[in-house]
Amino acid sequence: MKLDIFDTTLRDGEQGVGVEFSPDDRRRVIHALDDLGVSCIEAGMITDEASAAFFESLRHEKLNCARLAVFTRTARVGTDPASDPLLVMAANAPVPVAVIYGKAWLYQVTDVLGTTADENLRLIRESIRILREAGKEVVFDAEHFFSGWADSPEYAMRVAGEAFSAGASAVVLCDTNGGMLPDVVGMVTGAVAKAHPGKKIGIHCHNDMGMAAAATVSAVLAGAAHIQGTVSGIGERCGNADLCTLIPVLQIKLGFDCVGDRIAGLTKAARTVCDAANLSFDESAPFVGGYAFTHKAGSHIDGVKKDPASFEHMDPAAVGNIRNTVVSGLSGRAAILDRVRSLIPDGPLSKDDDRVVRAAAMIREREAAGFDYEDAGASLTLALEETLGRRRRFFELLSLKVVIDEPTDAPAEDPTKACGSGSGSGTLFSASAVIKIAVGEREYLTAGEGNGPVNAIDEALRRALTRFYPELESVRLTDYRVRVLDSRATASAVRVAIESTDGRTVWRTVGVSSDIINASWQALRDSVEYALARR
Amino acid sequence: MKLDIFDTTLRDGEQGVGVEFSPDDRRRVIHALDDLGVSCIEAGMITDEASAAFFESLRHEKLNCARLAVFTRTARVGTDPASDPLLVMAANAPVPVAVIYGKAWLYQVTDVLGTTADENLRLIRESIRILREAGKEVVFDAEHFFSGWADSPEYAMRVAGEAFSAGASAVVLCDTNGGMLPDVVGMVTGAVAKAHPGKKIGIHCHNDMGMAAAATVSAVLAGAAHIQGTVSGIGERCGNADLCTLIPVLQIKLGFDCVGDRIAGLTKAARTVCDAANLSFDESAPFVGGYAFTHKAGSHIDGVKKDPASFEHMDPAAVGNIRNTVVSGLSGRAAILDRVRSLIPDGPLSKDDDRVVRAAAMIREREAAGFDYEDAGASLTLALEETLGRRRRFFELLSLKVVIDEPTDAPAEDPTKACGSGSGSGTLFSASAVIKIAVGEREYLTAGEGNGPVNAIDEALRRALTRFYPELESVRLTDYRVRVLDSRATASAVRVAIESTDGRTVWRTVGVSSDIINASWQALRDSVEYALARR
Repeated sequence: MKLDIFDTTLRDGEQGVGVEFSPDDRRRVIHALDDLGVSCIEAGMITDEASAAFFESLRHEKLNCARLAVFTRTARVGTDPASDPLLVMAANAPVPVAVIYGKAWLYQVTDVLGTTADENLRLIRESIRILREAGKEVVFDAEHFFSGWADSPEYAMRVAGEAFSAGASAVVLCDTNGGMLPDVVGMVTGAVAKAHPGKKIGIHCHNDMGMAAAATVSAVLAGAAHIQGTVSGIGERCGNADLCTLIPVLQIKLGFDCVGDRIAGLTKAARTVCDAANLSFDESAPFVGGYAFTHKAGSHIDGVKKDPASFEHMDPAAVGNIRNTVVSGLSGRAAILDRVRSLIPDGPLSKDDDRVVRAAAMIREREAAGFDYEDAGASLTLALEETLGRRRRFFELLSLKVVIDEPTDAPAEDPTKACGSGSGSGTLFSASAVIKIAVGEREYLTAGEGNGPVNAIDEALRRALTRFYPELESVRLTDYRVRVLDSRATASAVRVAIESTDGRTVWRTVGVSSDIINASWQALRDSVEYALARR
Repeated sequence: MKLDIFDTTLRDGEQGVGVEFSPDDRRRVIHALDDLGVSCIEAGMITDEASAAFFESLRHEKLNCARLAVFTRTARVGTDPASDPLLVMAANAPVPVAVIYGKAWLYQVTDVLGTTADENLRLIRESIRILREAGKEVVFDAEHFFSGWADSPEYAMRVAGEAFSAGASAVVLCDTNGGMLPDVVGMVTGAVAKAHPGKKIGIHCHNDMGMAAAATVSAVLAGAAHIQGTVSGIGERCGNADLCTLIPVLQIKLGFDCVGDRIAGLTKAARTVCDAANLSFDESAPFVGGYAFTHKAGSHIDGVKKDPASFEHMDPAAVGNIRNTVVSGLSGRAAILDRVRSLIPDGPLSKDDDRVVRAAAMIREREAAGFDYEDAGASLTLALEETLGRRRRFFELLSLKVVIDEPTDAPAEDPTKACGSGSGSGTLFSASAVIKIAVGEREYLTAGEGNGPVNAIDEALRRALTRFYPELESVRLTDYRVRVLDSRATASAVRVAIESTDGRTVWRTVGVSSDIINASWQALRDSVEYALARR
C-alpha cells in the first residue's frame, strides 16, 4: 500500500528554535526531498512580498516527483474568507497544493477564539472553498484534533466531516501539543477512518512525549495514509515526527510503500537538510545517524563480524548508511572503492586493492581529525587524487600575512558605540592580506582587503591567480560556514565549509584546523584548485 | 502501582560513542540519580583492579533510596562458574544487587556461541547461583529476548523460567538490537508475565527505531514492573530508552509511581548527568529540554498566555522545567512585553506602552539586520536594557589590532604542504591581538595570542578585564558558530553566535556585521558584560 509522505520541514520545522531557512536554503531542501521521493513538500507560508516572491520563483523549479504546497490558515472570525489577504495570496501561489489549518477543539473555539462552534465550521468550509475554487488540492490540518476529541468527540468529528464536504482531499489529525500516547492516537484515527471510508486521513504528531514516531505508526496501522513529519524531527519544542525514522519503519519494517527505491538516499537527504538548517547533525539518530550502526563494545564488534544480525536490526545500506566500529573509523570500503573507480578509469576492481586501502586509511584519519566529506565532494575528490598521487598543484603559497586594524581614513567615531551590540552596520575593523604565490618559476606578490581576514585572503589570492588563470574571474564564494568541533570553543578545532560557484555549477570544500585561518585557507585553496582541475 | 526504575547510564550508557565516566563522574551520577529517587543504579562492571577499587570506594557512599548494582555476564562455555574470575569479583562487590546477562536467542547460542541449548541454560543457572550464594539480589538480563522469541519462543521462555528457578528476582526482557515495534514488545512481555504470575518482569529497550520509550510503555502496560533505561537515552548506536521521558510518561500520564515527589528534580538530574558524561545537552529533549516548553510562533505565544493548555501538554513545573518564549520575527508584542516586564519590576502594564513599542521596533530592526535572538537570550537582555536606557557599560574599547602571520620561531616547513588539504594538524598562522580598554579613568593595554583572530581577541580582552573584574576568571567560551547571512559569501554579513559558561550556568550571545571580527567582538563583548551584569 502506498502512503503519502508529506514533508513540513520548511514550515513546521522552521518553528524550531534556531531554525531559519533563506530562499536558497529552501530550494536546497526542496531538491533534497524531491530526490528522496517524498509526495509533497510544504514550502512555507505567504505572509508578505518576500514570501510571495519566493513562491513565484518556484514556478521554474523542475522536480522529479514531489508536489509543492503552500500553507495558510482559515479566515478570521466574522470575516469573509474571499477577502482575506493571506487566503488570497495562498490561492494565487503557483503550487498545486494548499494546506490550511483550523481548530478542531471546541473549548479552543469558544474560549480562546471566542466564537461559536458554527462560526468555526463556516470559516473552515468557506476558507477551503476559496482555495478549491482557485484550483488547489486542499489538505486540511485539524489542529488540536486529539485534545479536541478528548473534550468533544462529536465536534472534532464534525470538523473533519465539514472539511471533507468542502472538498479537502485529506484531513490531517494533529496532535498539536504532542501529549498523546500512541494507543490513543491509533484508536481515534481508527474511529475517524471508519466514519469516512475511502477518504484520506492524515496524521501530524509532535514529539513532546518522545513518541511521535510510534504514534504516527499507530495511526497508519489504524488507517492513516498521509504522513506528516520533518527531516530529523526538526520543529518547535521537542520537534515533529521524524520522517527519517518513519520512512524506514513504515517501508522496511511494515511493508508500506513510502518512497520506493529512493529510500537508499535517506541518509544523504537527512544530512543535506540539516546542513541547510545549519543544525548539527544528530549522529545518534535512528537509521541515518553516523552512530546508528556503529559498534563500540568489543563483544558487539565480534558478534557483528560473525553475523550482522547479532547487534543490527537491519542492513544499514538499505537507507544509505554504513556499518562502523569506533576503532576503525567512519567510512566503508565499498563506498571508497566507488569513488576511487570514478577517478581512475582503468582503476581497481576490488575492495582490497592497495589504492582503496590507502584511500580508506586517509579518509579515516581525516574524519577522525574532524573533516566531514559528506557534503564536501570537491575536497574529497582532491584528497583522493592526492592519495593516489594524481593531484595537480596549480600554485604554491610562499607567504601570507593579514593585519586587522581600524581604517585610518574613517571618520572619527566613538569606537565603543561601533563595537557595542549596535545594529551591526558599523564596520570598525579593516582586514588586509598580503600574499605571495609561485606558479611554476614565476612569483607574484599581491594584496587584498576585505570585511574580515578570510575575505581579504580570498581577494588577494584571486587577484594573484587570475593573472595566471583568467578563468577564475567567474568563480566566487556563495557560502561560508564555521563550526567548532568540540567544547573548548575558540581554541579548539574548527571546521570551515565553503560553497563556490562559477555561475553554472556549485561545489563545496572543507578545511579543518585548530586555526580558523588555516582551516579557511584549506577550503579556499581546494575551491580554487577544484575549479582549475575541472576545466 | 510502584515501578522499579533501574538506571544503566553508567553501564549500558557508557557504550555510547564518546561517553566515558571517571570514578568521580560515576559518583556524581550516582548521587544525581539517588536524589532523583530511582530504585537501583547499575554502577558498572568489575573487570580489573581499577573497577574493583571503584566498587570498594562505594562502600562509604551514603544514599537516600537507591540501591547499587554490579553488572556481570554468565560464565564461559564449558567452564565452572564458581571459578570464573569476573563472576567471583562481582560476587564480592560491596553492593546488594548483581545484574547478569545471558543469551535468550537459540540461534545465537548454537551459531554464535557455538554451544548447545542445554549448556547455555546450565551457565545461566549456575552463574545466578554463585551470585545468590554470595547474598546478592540477582537481576537477569535476557539478551536478545525479542529476537529470540521470533526465532524460538519456547527456548526464550525456557531461559526466563531457568533464571527465575535459579533465584533471579527479576528477568529483564532485552530488545538488544532495538528493532522491535512497541506492539510486539507489549505482546511478548504480556505472554512472559502471564507465564510467571507474581514474578517481576523487566524491560530494556534500545532506540534504533526511535521507539524505545513507546516500546517500554507497551511492556509496562502488559505487566513489566522493572524499567531499565538511561538518562537522556545515552547509549550505544541510537541509545537506550530515555528515563527522562519514561518517568514523566509513566508517572504523570499513566499514574504509576516511579520516583514519587522527587520527579520535580528530573530536569536538574538530566543536566547533571549529561554534564558528567561531557555530552552537550539536547535542548529538544521531551520534558527536560530547554526548548520542551519554549514557544516561537506568535499565535502559539498568544495562545499559551490565554491558556497554557493551548500549546502545552502538561505543566513544565511538574518536572522542574519552565515555560519560555523566544523572541523572533515570528513572535508578537506580547512576548516582548513579558521580557520588558522582567527587566523593569515597576514596568509597563500594556502592549502599547512606549517602552514596549520601542523594544519591538529595536528587535524588528536588528532581526532585519540579521540578528537572531532566539537562541541568544543574553544579547537580547542587554539590547533591551540598552533600549530602555538601563544598560551598564563596564569598559570602553579604545583600540584593537590583530596581526596574522607565520610563527617566527616555527621550524622551517614547506608552507604549501601545511596549507594544503592536509590532516589539519599543521598550524601555519599565528594570530596576535593588541587591545586597549578603559575602565572608568584607568586605561589598560594588553596582548593575547591564539589559534585565530577571535581566540586572540578573547585572550587579550579577558587578560585586560580580569585585572578589574577578577570574577571573569571562571568565564569561558564553550561554543562559537559563524553563519553567512546571504549568498555573497565572505564579503556579506555574518552572524556569530557564542556560548559561554561560568561552570554553573550557560548563556548565549550574538553579533552581526559585514565584518566577521566586528560580529565576533559584539558577541564577545555581550558575553563578558552579561557575566558582569548578572553578579
